[in-house]
Amino acid sequence: MSEFHAIIPAGGAGARLWPLSRRRAPKFLADLTGSGATLIQQTVRRLDPLTGGNVVVVTGQAHAPAVAEQLPKLPDSQILAEPSPRDSMAAIGLAAAVILNRHGDVVIGSFAADHLIKDEDAFRAAVSEAIEAANMGLVVTIGITPDHPATGFGYIHAGDLLGNLPTARSVTEFLEKPDLDTATSYLATGEYRWNAGMFVARASVLLGALAKYEPELHDEIIRLAGAWDTPGREEATAEIWPSLKKIAIDHAIAEPLAADGGVAVVPVEMGWSDVGDFASLRDVLEDRLQVSPGGQPQETVLVDAPGALVYSHSKPIAVVGIDDAVVVETEDAILVTTRQRAQDVKRVVDSLAERNLESLQ
Amino acid sequence: MSEFHAIIPAGGAGARLWPLSRRRAPKFLADLTGSGATLIQQTVRRLDPLTGGNVVVVTGQAHAPAVAEQLPKLPDSQILAEPSPRDSMAAIGLAAAVILNRHGDVVIGSFAADHLIKDEDAFRAAVSEAIEAANMGLVVTIGITPDHPATGFGYIHAGDLLGNLPTARSVTEFLEKPDLDTATSYLATGEYRWNAGMFVARASVLLGALAKYEPELHDEIIRLAGAWDTPGREEATAEIWPSLKKIAIDHAIAEPLAADGGVAVVPVEMGWSDVGDFASLRDVLEDRLQVSPGGQPQETVLVDAPGALVYSHSKPIAVVGIDDAVVVETEDAILVTTRQRAQDVKRVVDSLAERNLESLQ
Repeated sequence: MSEFHAIIPAGGAGARLWPLSRRRAPKFLADLTGSGATLIQQTVRRLDPLTGGNVVVVTGQAHAPAVAEQLPKLPDSQILAEPSPRDSMAAIGLAAAVILNRHGDVVIGSFAADHLIKDEDAFRAAVSEAIEAANMGLVVTIGITPDHPATGFGYIHAGDLLGNLPTARSVTEFLEKPDLDTATSYLATGEYRWNAGMFVARASVLLGALAKYEPELHDEIIRLAGAWDTPGREEATAEIWPSLKKIAIDHAIAEPLAADGGVAVVPVEMGWSDVGDFASLRDVLEDRLQVSPGGQPQETVLVDAPGALVYSHSKPIAVVGIDDAVVVETEDAILVTTRQRAQDVKRVVDSLAERNLESLQ
Repeated sequence: MSEFHAIIPAGGAGARLWPLSRRRAPKFLADLTGSGATLIQQTVRRLDPLTGGNVVVVTGQAHAPAVAEQLPKLPDSQILAEPSPRDSMAAIGLAAAVILNRHGDVVIGSFAADHLIKDEDAFRAAVSEAIEAANMGLVVTIGITPDHPATGFGYIHAGDLLGNLPTARSVTEFLEKPDLDTATSYLATGEYRWNAGMFVARASVLLGALAKYEPELHDEIIRLAGAWDTPGREEATAEIWPSLKKIAIDHAIAEPLAADGGVAVVPVEMGWSDVGDFASLRDVLEDRLQVSPGGQPQETVLVDAPGALVYSHSKPIAVVGIDDAVVVETEDAILVTTRQRAQDVKRVVDSLAERNLESLQ
């Protein structure tokens, strides 16, 4: 198998998971499942058998020290600190170009730092097949087999089998988040997969596609990557980074390249979740309804409280007469909501911002 | 005005107010309104202009030290410690007999330690009128003018005006907690008042009624009171107390005496609440929806959470998308429920008992 390097973009506020996810310590730095490992630690660990430590994390400058602390085996050179967020194409493109300069034209794969995957063997099998497809010159995505007509994810329309691989198919089209009717019609065909934002390709193929569809962004990224491992990094970063085009990798490469027949998808069922809010977190946790990440396990008393999800830090929690309650105690805050209103937790963070309560955001 | 002595029975678990009310520190020892004073402190303070410090508290032995600590001006001799609960007649009867021995045939009044009264002037005016009626040889109760057909209180049926007092009326009958239809029919007549368990009488009148309707209990209480201020108190208590009849003052005296024409009621509107659960507590607090008794005031964020009642101790609390939420953080526990389910908070305490979680009950 080819040498494989993982790129882990670690960004995103995770405001819907407040107070577990905070501006100063976003979701990817949190242990949302009480497993003892944070999401980024789980992400790196899950890829370890494929990467052998060849991992580059791209994260905001503010979070780089925490990433280094949580991943003590990762050399500092493998943490790329962004001075400001420029969306996923800049982050992944820079990492791809830096890896290319350091290791030559290896296969790279990009995986978000803040997702959960239950069946890690299925995940690694899918990535392995994606690596094979990448070696055929394709940009390859991992497509999650939908189990419900979700409206919160983009979809991938899968075409024919590539033929020489067990499950990989060509990609006809990437589709934006659909409405419920559209999502339901997608599921009825069996031809659509969720876009989990995972892309695998040879570094040269990814950067070649970038050169084709976003030539200016490509040239700037190559120039910055050229300076990265030199004393000129800081100056080049200050000069180039702030003006880079903000665009997602889906729009920059995946969509136009799919139209040109250059994208494949490896479909997989692996218990994937982007853990976007407490409702999806509860789905992931299933019947583990009491979690104490970082704290001592506490007593929980549920009286007529079916479907409760309780995070305790230091205090026993009782819930009486609320269906699907979500109660979260952290070291410095308490959230009470329901599974049905999980999306609106973001409004707490908005309200804290309006009230200038920096320390609580 | 006659010398007036208040008797304050301080008992009751207040399990529906967990975790503010605890077995080791029941409701009357708690500051439920963030006023800076506990319920028993407020009770004593509210009576002060009438009693001038002539107050006797009757409480369980376990709580006597806490009562002494919360009421530092109260001499130890004015705290009567019960070895076990024998219901209100034994507690009030003993206090009445002890006061009679110490001070002669003064007017006494019994007031629960764990109620709230908003209009204290109205309260004292009503008690003053009750004292006048008591001096006519009657047992006088304070009757709360109902503002809704409550099913959780007993009712007093008021008869004719006594005539020589502004508002006092004879009492025709004491009635048990009614169902909703019955309560509604009571309100329609305008003749009924809530029984708040407040009784005012000359000590000799109260004890005379006890002698008439419960002669055995009377004799035992007189015997115990005779030993109370002597070296024989402990022995007499051990011998007499455990066998005293468990009966409420309403059944022992008020009901039969009313039938014999010996009871009067002073009706009053004074914003009275027995603070039985978080729903009634929320009514008392009105728009003061964020309370931090004993702790630092904390930030509260309410998103689509009308009617929330939030007690915070040390952590900011956010509530999203729950109507009439009740969220209570104390030093060592968190409760989440709704106003509608306030009655079921008792089941948390039951559950803690079943699980032998002594320290949390």
